[in-house]
Amino acid sequence: MTIEPGGHLVSVSAGSLLHDALEQAGVRLTLPCGGQGRCGRCIVVVQEGSVRRRSTARLTEDEIARGFALACQTVVLSDVAVWVPPEVEELERAESATRPAKEAPDVMVCEHEAEPWVTQYELEITPPSLSDNTPDLERLQRELALQYDLRDLAPTSAPGTALRVLRELPAVLRDAQWHVVASVEHPASGPPRLVGVDPAAAPAPALGLAIDIGTTSVVIYLGDLATRELVGNASAYNGQIACGDDIISRIIYAKEPARQRELQERVLATINSLIDEMMVNASARGEPLSPEQIRRVTVAGNTTMLQLFLGIDPRYIRLEPYVPAAGRYVPIQARELGLHTNPDAFVDCLPVVGAYVGADITAGAVRAGLHAEEAISLFVDIGTNGEMVLGNSDWLICCACSAGPAFEGSGAVSGTRAVPGAIEEVWIHPDTLEPTWTTIGGKPPVGICGSGMISLLGEMVMTGVIDKGGHIVAEGPRVRRGSFGREYVVAWSHETAKGASGPDIVLTETDIENLLRAKAAIYAGLVCLTESVGLGVGDVERVLIGGAFGRHIDVEKAIQIGLLPDMAWDRFTYLGNTSVQGAYLALTCREHRALVDDVASKMTYLELSADNRFMDAFTSALFIPHTDETLFPSVQQALRELGEARGGSA
Amino acid sequence: MTIEPGGHLVSVSAGSLLHDALEQAGVRLTLPCGGQGRCGRCIVVVQEGSVRRRSTARLTEDEIARGFALACQTVVLSDVAVWVPPEVEELERAESATRPAKEAPDVMVCEHEAEPWVTQYELEITPPSLSDNTPDLERLQRELALQYDLRDLAPTSAPGTALRVLRELPAVLRDAQWHVVASVEHPASGPPRLVGVDPAAAPAPALGLAIDIGTTSVVIYLGDLATRELVGNASAYNGQIACGDDIISRIIYAKEPARQRELQERVLATINSLIDEMMVNASARGEPLSPEQIRRVTVAGNTTMLQLFLGIDPRYIRLEPYVPAAGRYVPIQARELGLHTNPDAFVDCLPVVGAYVGADITAGAVRAGLHAEEAISLFVDIGTNGEMVLGNSDWLICCACSAGPAFEGSGAVSGTRAVPGAIEEVWIHPDTLEPTWTTIGGKPPVGICGSGMISLLGEMVMTGVIDKGGHIVAEGPRVRRGSFGREYVVAWSHETAKGASGPDIVLTETDIENLLRAKAAIYAGLVCLTESVGLGVGDVERVLIGGAFGRHIDVEKAIQIGLLPDMAWDRFTYLGNTSVQGAYLALTCREHRALVDDVASKMTYLELSADNRFMDAFTSALFIPHTDETLFPSVQQALRELGEARGGSA
Repeated sequence: MTIEPGGHLVSVSAGSLLHDALEQAGVRLTLPCGGQGRCGRCIVVVQEGSVRRRSTARLTEDEIARGFALACQTVVLSDVAVWVPPEVEELERAESATRPAKEAPDVMVCEHEAEPWVTQYELEITPPSLSDNTPDLERLQRELALQYDLRDLAPTSAPGTALRVLRELPAVLRDAQWHVVASVEHPASGPPRLVGVDPAAAPAPALGLAIDIGTTSVVIYLGDLATRELVGNASAYNGQIACGDDIISRIIYAKEPARQRELQERVLATINSLIDEMMVNASARGEPLSPEQIRRVTVAGNTTMLQLFLGIDPRYIRLEPYVPAAGRYVPIQARELGLHTNPDAFVDCLPVVGAYVGADITAGAVRAGLHAEEAISLFVDIGTNGEMVLGNSDWLICCACSAGPAFEGSGAVSGTRAVPGAIEEVWIHPDTLEPTWTTIGGKPPVGICGSGMISLLGEMVMTGVIDKGGHIVAEGPRVRRGSFGREYVVAWSHETAKGASGPDIVLTETDIENLLRAKAAIYAGLVCLTESVGLGVGDVERVLIGGAFGRHIDVEKAIQIGLLPDMAWDRFTYLGNTSVQGAYLALTCREHRALVDDVASKMTYLELSADNRFMDAFTSALFIPHTDETLFPSVQQALRELGEARGGSA
Repeated sequence: MTIEPGGHLVSVSAGSLLHDALEQAGVRLTLPCGGQGRCGRCIVVVQEGSVRRRSTARLTEDEIARGFALACQTVVLSDVAVWVPPEVEELERAESATRPAKEAPDVMVCEHEAEPWVTQYELEITPPSLSDNTPDLERLQRELALQYDLRDLAPTSAPGTALRVLRELPAVLRDAQWHVVASVEHPASGPPRLVGVDPAAAPAPALGLAIDIGTTSVVIYLGDLATRELVGNASAYNGQIACGDDIISRIIYAKEPARQRELQERVLATINSLIDEMMVNASARGEPLSPEQIRRVTVAGNTTMLQLFLGIDPRYIRLEPYVPAAGRYVPIQARELGLHTNPDAFVDCLPVVGAYVGADITAGAVRAGLHAEEAISLFVDIGTNGEMVLGNSDWLICCACSAGPAFEGSGAVSGTRAVPGAIEEVWIHPDTLEPTWTTIGGKPPVGICGSGMISLLGEMVMTGVIDKGGHIVAEGPRVRRGSFGREYVVAWSHETAKGASGPDIVLTETDIENLLRAKAAIYAGLVCLTESVGLGVGDVERVLIGGAFGRHIDVEKAIQIGLLPDMAWDRFTYLGNTSVQGAYLALTCREHRALVDDVASKMTYLELSADNRFMDAFTSALFIPHTDETLFPSVQQALRELGEARGGSA
């Protein structure tokens, strides 16, 4: 097989997948859909030789005739020469180099008085003598009992007291001249554990990490376990993105053990590089920290992300009846995962409720505080899945609906993640149908991100570019027919980051269809949740929007397209990244950690795939804003007013 | 540097130790004394070039003139050519190839009714469905609660539930069609832990290992945790022997971290090869076992051996005030050490009392049963150290006295360990002073082992070859002057395994001096122990002899030389390897495990190095049988009778 550019010559046996053959030759392609042949991002051109295309989705007949093939769906039958378009190969590098737009950390520090997970005790110890040659460990324990009344710290009842501590103990005690600081972990149950001994002359606060492993981004907060103060924060794209954009793509990618390990290694590499970065930043600030100080790690994320992080096969999450390996994870130590922390650090993965209601939701619900109020609130986290929790201090019910990747960038021809240059807001002139837009960071546009899609779709329906069924009905210079049906041009190529030689930024009817499915799934979930407890959508008193994406949604536009229920804007609250915030609360406060378990066990999981009402509600919601317009009176009103205005001006 | 034979040419910088330079060149020498220059086993001949001898102990002036040097004590000053005598280089290979004489396993199975450490529960589990998609782990736990009332097995309170189990759980449950066997560990404190799930169709009993890590030999018993039956056993020399024969030599060898790691790796390699061997043997018997079945490991051994096994610096054991790192060790998992067992197996190192009273003694004392009787008993383990425990069900007091390597083979010119061909019993004709002897396995003699030394020394004193001070006073063809003073020839070279070209097997006055020091140290320890509780040696009602060496001691001869107290032979009992037996009891019975802790905490440690009475008692015991002959009436009587007989026959 010959690969251009680069001219590698690789001999591959017949039957090998083109993607795998290219990977062997060192050419890595990005697989946003995990290798399902759905996204069309791995298109290459077979110039010579024989191949068999398992799927030709996303390819026109003309393209196939010219040798175009999806690398993830094409089997090599003979020696072949393959041209890899630079953008296909470069995609990964470009995306991994680009950070998600930096968000200010949003830390909620609680007022609880509970003891921290790890407490440090300063000790002056009488050195041993011939008349008292008590062993080192027992001597230390004796002092902890005498000076701090820590009497249960006997080694036989301390399953976590690490061998590493014991190995270092004799030298540390003597080097520190018997003046040390003992770090003692107080687990949720069982006796305290001695987790570290350091010289008192060089005290180092015990730190903890709160991690949100998102399908798209990984966000880390570093906190002081004693003071609960935020010490650092960092975020990056999840290194697994090259293996699939959404959960299902990742699960499909992970079908072989080696690939499952690859996914685990990728997310661990992302986390470790973020830890390293925080250490470097701290040094640059003149406040150096050591990874050894990180003595606890609290992890939130959806069920698939947690299973991949822990190296647990995620396949049964995708297969009916959709069963996670565990609801509450087992206690593990950082050394088992190779995290760049103290190897004895306890890694606490927060509990999940079901295959599609993960720890991002249990942590997020605690952050949102649903359990603490009498008012019926809805907590909603919109991403490739829309997860929702409805309830109050008496009851909680939750569900997940598969929204697809429409809001995450890869579900649309000109979709992008929320990177600098992403179009995030759009306005369409009702008369000329000409758009204006803003991009993240004010950079030349590279595509449309999720919030931009909502904004754009809202404008298109309000200005009559599309009808209620999502069909592009207007005519004009911005409307044309493309490869995927009719499309609306949001930005001409010369306006974009790629310039005149690149493609225009468009929204196609197929994209709109995906967006409608996404918003319909979420709204249908809300309908099913409320109906299952005998309520109507209107009975929801507050809507708490979580998730990194939620922060960017324009409520007005989201109501216009029927994604969010039509109610007064002041009943909506943005909470930002509720997953990492909930993890930070659980990291810094044991009472909040207990709350996550309580909330998780209190949540009733409504399985929508077993619910006929869901399909009905979904079908009804496939219109803009909804088949039943009375559910969206403010939109009805605005449409009427705009129609009158247009009618007036026509 | 040139090395012969082999003719390696290695350039070593000046200042490098000859031993290290040889090791770099791939020539490994055995260092029985750990590199202290005391044993003379690493003698090489410097043929060319310049060296500096730090120590010339064990070398005559003539030998030095001929280039002889101790590799462990000689610094290379220039390019040198070194001749390594084959026996010096080959020693290690020969010794590691030779197994200790095989002992029949000596297992005490107790009658306690306590639950085993690991119990297996068969479970038929209802598969998940859309109406009940409880996660796998919680589904299993629910069944364990319903079917076996194991209600505390919640993951948050099970710090040992291994990630590995969770990783395998989804596939095992489904492959086994929801019919599985759950292995549940019941720790000494805290809730039970799920440690394994296997298909019910392929049940595999939970096994455990009891290990005695001796300074010389490692002995392993493999048992069924449920039935307590012995499944296999194996033993080998401790791979650390090449780095020193006794504890102090090993500690000296371990002074650099790399060497400490080497010692840990060596003993782990010994243990792992024994486990592998048992697996191979089981397969050969048609009863294949898997290392995965080994779910618990109980380890006994002296304090230094345990610290080296765990990778804990042993240096403070040797330095005043002689402090071990811990009395009770921390709980660890087999994966932390790389044992060839189930990686989640709990490794339970039994408690030590002091730097020189280790887990071999706490385990041995429990096996001996001192704590269970009203009669005052003495438990004694004779090796390079003589450890003793005196007491009964009300009290226990212990001490350790450094006997040196005289009984272990390397403390004498013709000393050897108890390998096939070792002279183990000697009789000397009272008139001709000609010896007859038996060897282990009836092989041609290779040297004299510890029991042979005791036997020989007893004969020598009873036949007047030596006087009460240990000086060789007889004359005759067997007595001559050698490099280390006068010596008695036990076997002429032509009778030995090496043949006429090899050395004669002898006992020198220096050897006798070492033997006297060894036996005096042990007897003095006994005197101090009894006096410290206001008793006399005669108040001891039973003497229980433990340790692998103890099994071979001839009580009559041991009393003759004043090693053991003079009392009726039926008050002595041989128990064999009490360390591994005690470990096996603790492995197979939780009540016995608790007893080891009880006994360890009940033992008062008498530090002899701080006790002036010890030096007095030691000096008094440097005669044969003792300065105070009234302490050994039977020996006095026998000597008188023999003297009369000789007087009569002369």
